[in-house]
Amino acid sequence: MIVLGIDPGIALTGWGIIDAQSRDKIKALQYGCITTIPSQTTIERIQSINTQLQKIIDIYQPQNIAIEELFFLKRASSIALIGQARGAILLTIAQNRIKLYEYNPRRVKLALTGYGSADKHQMQHMVKTFLGLSEIPKPDDAADALAMAICHIHTAWTQKR
Amino acid sequence: MIVLGIDPGIALTGWGIIDAQSRDKIKALQYGCITTIPSQTTIERIQSINTQLQKIIDIYQPQNIAIEELFFLKRASSIALIGQARGAILLTIAQNRIKLYEYNPRRVKLALTGYGSADKHQMQHMVKTFLGLSEIPKPDDAADALAMAICHIHTAWTQKR
Repeated sequence: MIVLGIDPGIALTGWGIIDAQSRDKIKALQYGCITTIPSQTTIERIQSINTQLQKIIDIYQPQNIAIEELFFLKRASSIALIGQARGAILLTIAQNRIKLYEYNPRRVKLALTGYGSADKHQMQHMVKTFLGLSEIPKPDDAADALAMAICHIHTAWTQKR
Repeated sequence: MIVLGIDPGIALTGWGIIDAQSRDKIKALQYGCITTIPSQTTIERIQSINTQLQKIIDIYQPQNIAIEELFFLKRASSIALIGQARGAILLTIAQNRIKLYEYNPRRVKLALTGYGSADKHQMQHMVKTFLGLSEIPKPDDAADALAMAICHIHTAWTQKR
């Protein structure tokens, strides 16, 4: 199963593609960040996110996509921008008819570390370990996206049994 | 010039199509609301907004679209939902290569009534008057969308001179 994890944002959208042969036999095919620049208008940034995400979907053909649930610890202006990026990402996923799964940060932390309040460093360490990488994936947004994909694979396999 | 005004929301997106032969010779071709139901998932609602908006664009072929700027007087959870709807709407507009214009509520009020703090009733009355309608357009979201389109026509014509 090919899973795409996404950590949405207007300037940086982290993404990570994982190939899972079984619950424990997983590897990262690729990861990175979709970026847009603040000098662009919102509609230009939205369109750019769509174009870059469509390219990733076309190349890796993920069967499932895992995305972070929106949470509200941020400023209203940040939520508005993340919200718009997320809306464009959801529409792109819908237009590609790919199955979407949403996970909140606590759930992802629990799946990776067994501890719902794990810190960033613990999380990144577990992403590296699960994927057998030699280094922690950079930037943080890409590591978060990979964590989302790993969480989905664990959840999907657990529900299968 | 055919202008589509949009007042974005996740449950209700008001829309109004205006045909403007000149600054003062304008008429409403159609108006209404794109609706989604709360029992749907966010991605289903996003997809439904896209499908309904695409139908309106296909029928009326607007040259310009006027949309309300996001503002932050609302609760974070409302902003998150409006933001996602707005992101999907912006992507739909970008995919149709239609020119987008954004106006804040104060600007729209000023354009229609000459008074930036006009109340809802004054605004709706001016929408009815400008469009020569026999009644105030309902629901409110459709009237707001028509106001947005009228504001754009006034702005575009003023800038032409």
